[in-house]
Amino acid sequence: MQKWKLTETGAMNSWKDHVGGRFNVQGKKFVDRDLALEFFGVSVNELSPGQAAPFWHAHSVLEELYLILEGEGEFALDGEVVEVKPGSALRVGQNVMRAWRCKPTSEEPMRWICVRGGGAKLAEIPPDAKPILINEKPFPWSA
Amino acid sequence: MQKWKLTETGAMNSWKDHVGGRFNVQGKKFVDRDLALEFFGVSVNELSPGQAAPFWHAHSVLEELYLILEGEGEFALDGEVVEVKPGSALRVGQNVMRAWRCKPTSEEPMRWICVRGGGAKLAEIPPDAKPILINEKPFPWSA
Repeated sequence: MQKWKLTETGAMNSWKDHVGGRFNVQGKKFVDRDLALEFFGVSVNELSPGQAAPFWHAHSVLEELYLILEGEGEFALDGEVVEVKPGSALRVGQNVMRAWRCKPTSEEPMRWICVRGGGAKLAEIPPDAKPILINEKPFPWSA
Repeated sequence: MQKWKLTETGAMNSWKDHVGGRFNVQGKKFVDRDLALEFFGVSVNELSPGQAAPFWHAHSVLEELYLILEGEGEFALDGEVVEVKPGSALRVGQNVMRAWRCKPTSEEPMRWICVRGGGAKLAEIPPDAKPILINEKPFPWSA
């Protein structure tokens, strides 16, 4: 495993050109494939006003987070509908059947990040993180 | 555990008002705390041009992904410096000492998502996902 790796997804207004996933969904790119992420997955997504996900789906193992960056939409979660807007962060647990759309009245395409993961609880930051103060190790751009 | 939960982080141009984390970093909000995420963590982040992270840090367990949404920046990774721009997705592995800044010449604040997780490999989507076609279960907004 490389210590770090960089890829480019394109800026938000280019995500509509991506086709990702087993079902070749337009406007979706899986970042985890390019970066060989080990512990979670991330996709960048875009839908035009009035467009919807091509199917319902649920996950048996994975927890998902949808973070809305632009546009207004609706998520169907089993029998409920939740409205989302820029800044909304929606956690969806296992076995919840979900679908979504960008509202026909949205002034912008809906653009969002989806994060997914499962199998072990997250390590807490305080014991896991090891900080070094700047006076002990100057940043490289300060030279 | 609730089946789903929604929170609001504010739109991207309001992230500077958030203070998050053990070190009270301005312009950072941990979404995972509001949503009680089980398997990964997510923060939304903003830095003004010329500003830098307040310290270097590394993680012993957690893998991290930095997804740049706006602005131009630099990440220091051990002895290397990587340039990032909107759409850049950077995976940083365990035990890599890292810091970052928004370049002084950036026309916008740097705004990014950070995802972190560790402890178990990601479940693959094909066996985990259970899709339902729309003609079998109409979307609720089609009625």
